[in-house]
Amino acid sequence: MRALFTLATALLMSLPTLAAEPTHRVEPPNWWVGMRDTSLQLMLHGPGIADAQPTLAPYPGVTLKGSHRAASANYLFVDLVVGPGAQPGELQLQVGGTTLRYPLLARTPGSAERQGFGPKDALYLLVPDRFAKGADLGQAGMKEGTHRADPNGRHGGDLAGMRQHLGHIAGLGFTQVWPTPLVENNSEQYSYHGYAATDFYRIDPRFGTNDDFGAFVAEARTKGLGVIQDIVLNHIGAGHWWMADLPAPDWVNQSPRGYTETHHARMTLQDPYASPSDRQRFTDGWFVPGMPDLNQRRPELATYLTQMTLWWIERYGLSGIRTDTYSYSDRDFLTRWSARVMQEYPRLNIVGEEWSPHPAVVAYWQRGKKNHDGYVSHTPSMMDFPMNSALLAALTENDGAFTGLNRLYEGLAHDFVYPAPANLVLFDGNHDTPRLFSLLKKDVGLTKLALAYIATTRRIPQVFYGTELLMESPVERDDGRVRADMPGGWPGDKASAFTGAGLSLEQRDMLDWTRRLFNWRKGAGVIHDGALMQYAPLEGVYVFFRFDSARTVMVVLNKNDKPAELALARFAERVLPGQRARDVLGGQTQKLGSSVNVPARSPLILEIER
Amino acid sequence: MRALFTLATALLMSLPTLAAEPTHRVEPPNWWVGMRDTSLQLMLHGPGIADAQPTLAPYPGVTLKGSHRAASANYLFVDLVVGPGAQPGELQLQVGGTTLRYPLLARTPGSAERQGFGPKDALYLLVPDRFAKGADLGQAGMKEGTHRADPNGRHGGDLAGMRQHLGHIAGLGFTQVWPTPLVENNSEQYSYHGYAATDFYRIDPRFGTNDDFGAFVAEARTKGLGVIQDIVLNHIGAGHWWMADLPAPDWVNQSPRGYTETHHARMTLQDPYASPSDRQRFTDGWFVPGMPDLNQRRPELATYLTQMTLWWIERYGLSGIRTDTYSYSDRDFLTRWSARVMQEYPRLNIVGEEWSPHPAVVAYWQRGKKNHDGYVSHTPSMMDFPMNSALLAALTENDGAFTGLNRLYEGLAHDFVYPAPANLVLFDGNHDTPRLFSLLKKDVGLTKLALAYIATTRRIPQVFYGTELLMESPVERDDGRVRADMPGGWPGDKASAFTGAGLSLEQRDMLDWTRRLFNWRKGAGVIHDGALMQYAPLEGVYVFFRFDSARTVMVVLNKNDKPAELALARFAERVLPGQRARDVLGGQTQKLGSSVNVPARSPLILEIER
Repeated sequence: MRALFTLATALLMSLPTLAAEPTHRVEPPNWWVGMRDTSLQLMLHGPGIADAQPTLAPYPGVTLKGSHRAASANYLFVDLVVGPGAQPGELQLQVGGTTLRYPLLARTPGSAERQGFGPKDALYLLVPDRFAKGADLGQAGMKEGTHRADPNGRHGGDLAGMRQHLGHIAGLGFTQVWPTPLVENNSEQYSYHGYAATDFYRIDPRFGTNDDFGAFVAEARTKGLGVIQDIVLNHIGAGHWWMADLPAPDWVNQSPRGYTETHHARMTLQDPYASPSDRQRFTDGWFVPGMPDLNQRRPELATYLTQMTLWWIERYGLSGIRTDTYSYSDRDFLTRWSARVMQEYPRLNIVGEEWSPHPAVVAYWQRGKKNHDGYVSHTPSMMDFPMNSALLAALTENDGAFTGLNRLYEGLAHDFVYPAPANLVLFDGNHDTPRLFSLLKKDVGLTKLALAYIATTRRIPQVFYGTELLMESPVERDDGRVRADMPGGWPGDKASAFTGAGLSLEQRDMLDWTRRLFNWRKGAGVIHDGALMQYAPLEGVYVFFRFDSARTVMVVLNKNDKPAELALARFAERVLPGQRARDVLGGQTQKLGSSVNVPARSPLILEIER
Repeated sequence: MRALFTLATALLMSLPTLAAEPTHRVEPPNWWVGMRDTSLQLMLHGPGIADAQPTLAPYPGVTLKGSHRAASANYLFVDLVVGPGAQPGELQLQVGGTTLRYPLLARTPGSAERQGFGPKDALYLLVPDRFAKGADLGQAGMKEGTHRADPNGRHGGDLAGMRQHLGHIAGLGFTQVWPTPLVENNSEQYSYHGYAATDFYRIDPRFGTNDDFGAFVAEARTKGLGVIQDIVLNHIGAGHWWMADLPAPDWVNQSPRGYTETHHARMTLQDPYASPSDRQRFTDGWFVPGMPDLNQRRPELATYLTQMTLWWIERYGLSGIRTDTYSYSDRDFLTRWSARVMQEYPRLNIVGEEWSPHPAVVAYWQRGKKNHDGYVSHTPSMMDFPMNSALLAALTENDGAFTGLNRLYEGLAHDFVYPAPANLVLFDGNHDTPRLFSLLKKDVGLTKLALAYIATTRRIPQVFYGTELLMESPVERDDGRVRADMPGGWPGDKASAFTGAGLSLEQRDMLDWTRRLFNWRKGAGVIHDGALMQYAPLEGVYVFFRFDSARTVMVVLNKNDKPAELALARFAERVLPGQRARDVLGGQTQKLGSSVNVPARSPLILEIER
């Protein structure tokens, strides 16, 4: 336990005005004055402190409401009210003969009103361990060191590397970065992925310090990039410090009948016919023995997770949250958690991961959905897994009544199921899926069709790092290889995404094309908030328009392996022969005749002049 | 035109008290007193009658409200009110110097309150031309004769044949018969299928007379079988008598730009992004040049189609309507049409055909659905195409997170999308789909799994004739061969479904098994109206229960090619070791241990004793 306290102390010391008894872990490590909800619950961890009767030195605007213990003798939960009149400063809590000094910070001006990511943005997802190595942090006292030859080992990417290459991301036209989790994952193996936290408040030292993270976010902001925090509410790593001394036996979901794994039957939550035991198995079962499943029905844990989320947003100025394995957490907790986050930051965005191909299932979790069972969510966005699978099928299947391009068309027509379809995040792939280029059979044309669709449809686009370089992976799930190293991220790399050195012609073309696409999107307001009109695909060509009273963009996806001469007559509602149109990706402007020519396996994006 | 009038006269003469000027076609050919909606509009067709000023001889309770013409000089629409006090008898309408005598009949007692088909029923779908030949009707003056060797020709099945073999259908445990349309289809070719009406009020003489139809329905009733009429509102045959003299140019949908075919993009009707032109093309486009598309926005046509529907129900005592190509008709007309039919027969059932794999699309058309666009339907049932495709995929794909048995499980979980899922009709196949046994790779075990599911889940089951014999077809669409002749339906057939002669052992087993399944279902009230609880499929086995306070049925579908020893502990909510259970299909009763053995590729249906 000594090591844990040492780490906790190190963390606390890194915060500006914090000081605490070395024998206490206090979380959250600080708080702020001026939050809308004035309640604050501290979790104190220290030998035998559970029955201490804490007192608070007088502090204007702050009151100690009470405290209580759970089963363990080593945890004390202290409830405070930080009223609207409280000023920044340091609370002094007397706990069992020692004084705990607890920082109350001032909020950054405008913090509550920050604008989260949205349809105007394009997101770039990267895996920090695999993106770029910028410093020599080594094992940093953690259990697992660096083994770059092992696809499932740590490769040494870090915050310094991410920070060095922010220009690459911004230059491509993206406006938001979503790194997979950066918090401490101190496990023997597979520690690189970050989804098995061992400390919710500490950046893994192999990525850098909490201050390095702050510097990364700040520098991203100067480049026009927001940062989205990837938060896991459902589970922790087996090496989390709680596991050595659980606050209470029901802090994690444990079946009296022994280890129970989730069966991933997510529809137990919507299914009118689900058995209670099946529903419980989904929510309370563990992912793997190494990832204890948190019981968010435990009130102190729910509060802990909620405050932890707010802490990262407020402390580092984030523009949004991505919530891992969304539906696996307790459903009612998710209602309260999302309500609280959105109460503090009404314009923030949260995107939940619900890995289902069914719109009705994903829609269930989006804010504003009127659900059959009355379930209410406040999470504004969800990952658009249904459209991601429709897109992949659209480009790889033969076209039929319900296959091929019609999947894309009927998929979008399903938008009536969602309360806010434009706020869904549509992705080309992520760290859990085989890479786009490989799924599309290494066909550059199909890959460009996919990206063009993601960039122009009524969604928030998200691209997985490396797609711009046509990075490949096995087509069956193989996490370690999907999350391959970004070329140029390591000293001695022969090729580099960042300098262009050593890239193939095809890769350089793709990089340049992606840059044109997303930089154009950045300024194309009609894509951010315009209406959409689509036409049923015919003969391998799918056409839709984005438009408003002043602007029109025509998007043509030609899936055929030969050029298409597309007659315009069918689209007379939105474009007429004689209008001038600029080919957004090619650059030329032409006066339209009665048809347009679309090259084989290519998207054509036309800005139509009035 | 003479031939048409002759046919019309023949029809009119077959009705009990009807008489009319031979130079007039009058539709509907009779009406009833005591309908809830008292309005009645007659369509009169005769040379130059459009401007006649009809008068009605005094008839207590009946008033002539007015009359009007359309574009053609040969049609007159006469509006009557048949008030609540009117008695049965004969109206005398003076039209241009001649007297039209029009029958008003008494309704059969209880007609309005008849109970339509529902979850207590099992439907048997047959194609009259392909089921059995019972008489020697020959070409009967129609354009196409019999060519049994041609899969797309007429084979000579008729009402007499259907009537002779009602015992086969009832003996199998079915309680409803749905014959594909029997009305006159007088076209040069493909006349056998019945979906291209040339006279909406006349049974095709190659099937028999209207009276033969009446006798068929009456005899079916004595065997406990209701009859469902297959009605086409969307289109007619090119040889329909209207086409030689359209009441008005907009009676059928005709584009000024020439022939336009529907592109079958049915989601234009739900799609928030559909273009108006695409929506119109779906609804107003024709199926094929030989099937003119009706414009139900024309008020007289809307009234005609509605009265035609009511006429068949009332005249022949039907238990329901199956509506072909449901969504292709004008959407607002469908609202009014379904409202009127259900107003007259509040407990009737109507099942619409919407060929989509998407629950949200099918649900849109079901009575009680709160739609995003405010659309209202009064049609109580829809064909469950989504579950049909889920079932086929479930049994042919490998099991994965969203494939194989999970399609069935997640498909049923989608029931929250429907306002009345138990009233959907789930089918093994129909006249437009390849045959079940062939799609399931001629695997008898899989075929039994499919039928067992259809018979026990929360749906109205429908089976296509011949499935009980393992009839085969190409697996690509091939209508003529899907609708193959029922063995034993023709003199000289070597094998017979009806006597059992010449059937293979496998066929006889299937026939016997189907008989046991549906006869058991007939008396199993808990299947008709019990609740359902399902468990996520695991290891190739899918389990659900039907239950109420008194009864429990456990259904186990073992898709594996080896027996499964299924531990019961997981299902403790519904069954416990020590209870006694009867194997519904095997007949044995056993006391349950901690597990049950389920043979390879087999369903197991257990009635659990309390």
